[in-house]
Amino acid sequence: MRTHFCGLVDEALVGQTVTLCGWADVARNMGHFVFIDLRDHEGIVQVVAEPSDGDGGRDVVEAAAKVGYEDCLRITGTVRRRQNPNPKIHTGQVEVVAEKIEVLNKAEPLPFHAHENPGEDIRLKYRYLDLRTPDMQRKMRTRTKLVSALRAWLDARGFQDIETPILTKATPEGARDFLVPARMHEGEFYALPQSPQLFKQILMMAGFDRYYQIARCFRDEALRADRQLEFTQLDMEFAWVDEKIVQDTVEAMVRDVFREVMGVELDATFPRMTWAEAMRRYGSDKPDLRIGLELVDVAELVKNCEFAAFTAAANDPDGRVAALRIPGGASLSRKQIDEYAAHAAKFGAKGLAYAKIDDAGAVNSPIQKFFAEDAFKALLDAVGLRNGDIAFFGAGNYKTVSDSMGALRLKAGKDFNLVQDGWKPLWITDFPMFEWDDEEQRYVALHHPFTAPAVDSIADLRTNAKTAVSRGYDMVLNGNEIGGGSIRIHNSAMQSAVFELLGIGAEEAEGKFGFLLDALKYGAPPHGGIAFGIDRIAALMAGTESIRDVIAFPKTTTAQCLMTGAPSPVPDKQLAEVHVQVREKGADKA
Amino acid sequence: MRTHFCGLVDEALVGQTVTLCGWADVARNMGHFVFIDLRDHEGIVQVVAEPSDGDGGRDVVEAAAKVGYEDCLRITGTVRRRQNPNPKIHTGQVEVVAEKIEVLNKAEPLPFHAHENPGEDIRLKYRYLDLRTPDMQRKMRTRTKLVSALRAWLDARGFQDIETPILTKATPEGARDFLVPARMHEGEFYALPQSPQLFKQILMMAGFDRYYQIARCFRDEALRADRQLEFTQLDMEFAWVDEKIVQDTVEAMVRDVFREVMGVELDATFPRMTWAEAMRRYGSDKPDLRIGLELVDVAELVKNCEFAAFTAAANDPDGRVAALRIPGGASLSRKQIDEYAAHAAKFGAKGLAYAKIDDAGAVNSPIQKFFAEDAFKALLDAVGLRNGDIAFFGAGNYKTVSDSMGALRLKAGKDFNLVQDGWKPLWITDFPMFEWDDEEQRYVALHHPFTAPAVDSIADLRTNAKTAVSRGYDMVLNGNEIGGGSIRIHNSAMQSAVFELLGIGAEEAEGKFGFLLDALKYGAPPHGGIAFGIDRIAALMAGTESIRDVIAFPKTTTAQCLMTGAPSPVPDKQLAEVHVQVREKGADKA
Repeated sequence: MRTHFCGLVDEALVGQTVTLCGWADVARNMGHFVFIDLRDHEGIVQVVAEPSDGDGGRDVVEAAAKVGYEDCLRITGTVRRRQNPNPKIHTGQVEVVAEKIEVLNKAEPLPFHAHENPGEDIRLKYRYLDLRTPDMQRKMRTRTKLVSALRAWLDARGFQDIETPILTKATPEGARDFLVPARMHEGEFYALPQSPQLFKQILMMAGFDRYYQIARCFRDEALRADRQLEFTQLDMEFAWVDEKIVQDTVEAMVRDVFREVMGVELDATFPRMTWAEAMRRYGSDKPDLRIGLELVDVAELVKNCEFAAFTAAANDPDGRVAALRIPGGASLSRKQIDEYAAHAAKFGAKGLAYAKIDDAGAVNSPIQKFFAEDAFKALLDAVGLRNGDIAFFGAGNYKTVSDSMGALRLKAGKDFNLVQDGWKPLWITDFPMFEWDDEEQRYVALHHPFTAPAVDSIADLRTNAKTAVSRGYDMVLNGNEIGGGSIRIHNSAMQSAVFELLGIGAEEAEGKFGFLLDALKYGAPPHGGIAFGIDRIAALMAGTESIRDVIAFPKTTTAQCLMTGAPSPVPDKQLAEVHVQVREKGADKA
Repeated sequence: MRTHFCGLVDEALVGQTVTLCGWADVARNMGHFVFIDLRDHEGIVQVVAEPSDGDGGRDVVEAAAKVGYEDCLRITGTVRRRQNPNPKIHTGQVEVVAEKIEVLNKAEPLPFHAHENPGEDIRLKYRYLDLRTPDMQRKMRTRTKLVSALRAWLDARGFQDIETPILTKATPEGARDFLVPARMHEGEFYALPQSPQLFKQILMMAGFDRYYQIARCFRDEALRADRQLEFTQLDMEFAWVDEKIVQDTVEAMVRDVFREVMGVELDATFPRMTWAEAMRRYGSDKPDLRIGLELVDVAELVKNCEFAAFTAAANDPDGRVAALRIPGGASLSRKQIDEYAAHAAKFGAKGLAYAKIDDAGAVNSPIQKFFAEDAFKALLDAVGLRNGDIAFFGAGNYKTVSDSMGALRLKAGKDFNLVQDGWKPLWITDFPMFEWDDEEQRYVALHHPFTAPAVDSIADLRTNAKTAVSRGYDMVLNGNEIGGGSIRIHNSAMQSAVFELLGIGAEEAEGKFGFLLDALKYGAPPHGGIAFGIDRIAALMAGTESIRDVIAFPKTTTAQCLMTGAPSPVPDKQLAEVHVQVREKGADKA
């Protein structure tokens, strides 16, 4: 069919006859000559059809003149050195003088051209045309390389790739399940797994030692830019381990895979930081360490000032007053400062105080008046404010201040070009075991209900639930949580106690997780694991913001596949076979 | 946590201190001494707790005496040579003298013991206990090795692993779809894919060159022993190819993978056989070549006899009269012959004639009377009947005779121990494009509607639909269809013509496959591919009849997971969120 790939034809082939297959990227008809850029997955090569002594030349020129954009061609010709080399591409030193041009499939005029920069809806409807562009080919290939490198690494180290069911039991882990009506069991449903969490734990109890799976997971949640209904994670679990074994192993994996796929050398040891430290210094449990800015706690310095918002928070044990200094930030206009305040408000902040010093040393701050001169100087010194800088101040409850100031830190990093190049991985550890949910008036699990607490006994956990720390850990890279895991509970009584603290009664626990509680009784080894978000890591590696660029057939934010038209209505007969019907309009609201 | 795996402790470690983790397989209390078989995923090692000079010995013996079946233990001790070696296991030359025994998790008395040979329902309910047995560990590891070897082979050759959606559009390809109600689109549904067929074809049109995926597929069909609701296939597709490239490539892959996983050298070239020849010689499109028996067509020799069943079939252009000789089959009793007839009847045979010759040369045949002496002798000669043999005769329409005689061939192979050891792969090619469905009074696709016909033009196909041959191919191994594929239609007009011949109207085709017909217009390269059944190949390699033995968490034949209890009822509130309700009883039948 072909002897070479278009994108790999180079000087080594000069003088040789080659047969190539590909798409006509561009055809330029110069009268006697026709140039065709022929494209395959490896790249583009220039083909020239030109008159020759015999009749063949004229035939080839005529055939070439008829070639249209995206026609599927097979071309045989001789490789020769080009008169006007193009150093930008691998094939740029040569061209192929066509001897035979076959049209394998004629293309109709395309609905759009890539260079027209069509909207994403059009790109998704004609996904096959979009994917055919070199940029999308490169992004998708990055994903393939990532997955391939991960598997090779794991296979070489005795990790067993084991598939777990897609049709499984509804077991809420926070998000909404997708349901699948069961034909053979009237009125019953399977659910698609939110993750293989319980199955991988069961596998450890089933005698497997090291498990992994590139697993599809499903969450029926509102879609955001970086969320899909279905997503892919590298799911791993280890038997007979503690957190150090898991962390050291996967850290080495990430390092090796980044070296192989990206040619990048990550830190020899990833920094480890407790959740509390991350919140204090960066206002985030996934800090982007490429940005050098840190929050500064100033409660001690403001607790006696006359600004009520500061003093209230500074004197509240659950409060926080924190400052963020932005070097060069004095250039921010009143309007831009308002934008920062609006951004902080999205994360719950009720206001945003600031102080700036212009290049001449003049201070401008609406809160200066609440301070004695010395006290205000001490405050600005603590924050490290210098000429040309601005500092923002947040005051309120600990979480709101951390979240909002953390968000401002990211915004400032982007706005002031303070994001260093490169890769900054780290571990976050010592997460709180529980978070108090004000709305539901109960504890919820910060990781998931199967995470082991770092306590000595059940009694200990019950007494100190509020402050208990879990054995969970996240791997963070450039401000993205790329992996999360934990050592699991491997004791049935402890698991029941945690369910109880989470407000899951004995009966509910038995109904939903009975098989886990059983399995924990019959010889469950200590175990733990982690899951990495493949879509996100691939997007980071491919240098794109959107995970949709590294998913062949993504859904829109309205949960549709614009190419196939899914979801779609189905005949009622088909619904009857699985014993369901569409609810009557309004019936839900009754 | 541990220094070595239990199953790998051997003479090289004699004198060394090791720390092992594992399950207490058996503990034998001999009074002063306690022996524990400690088991992990690698195997079993004998641990001995014995009195020693210090107090430590007594403590260890006491701890060991309390050990129960399947307790999770961590044991530190010294490796020494055993007095009574067990040559059957890797660790059989040594034992570990325990110095410290920690119980990491005490096991409650188990619901069953593996050696009690519990029923499959119990094994599936406590799947984690079943999987913990060395036999199941071995089977599951065979599957892991298979998948790992396949991926390594494909990754090394530039095949791109690309994931396709699980939540997709209902596009019937023969079997029933699983439906998933869409929360964001009231009254609409996603469907789980029966295979990634259309997506992989689209990927070829999207500029990818070589695709593969270990893909989960879903079919809501009645379950048989070798069927699951969800199953796994190695899905592959190639752009710019013909069938020879696909077949040669995957044949090399299968050969290399069998060598690597099984240490088996398959044929250097797999035999190729047309569908017509396979039906004629073996009465099957997936012949088991380990059985030497072949069918013999005898219509010419019986068309003038006086047995109406024979003459009718022999003179019918769509009929067939075929014989199967079973060497040594004269020993079959009347009752056993009836069993053969009953087996043939399952495949539609209306009766089963036979002729046998005992060791002394005496013929016994109910049909002898319908033949002149010469003619009967000629018939038996043609069949090759010798002393001690039996021959069965089938007469009727071509398909029924082929199916039923093919089934008898397999039965005879098993009953008379005529199945040779080893692996017999082959290709079946030149399938009929269409099969006439009497019930629906229309053509149905023998492979699927996207398979290219081996014709020169659409007109040609329309004229010769009944006899048209497709460009499909199956790989068969030991009587199992392990892979099936084809060159696809890459032309929109041809695809529409095939839909039309299959009775899929233009409107229906547009609704279901519009995106494919579109994509075929905008530069679709010639392409083709294949899919291999991973569950079946893993079962063959693991030497088990049941694919459930190579699936970690299989469903029963009634589509249930006995461990988790899926499927299960869900609260109506949850159904309301996705706009469906369970149909009222009886409403379906109204």
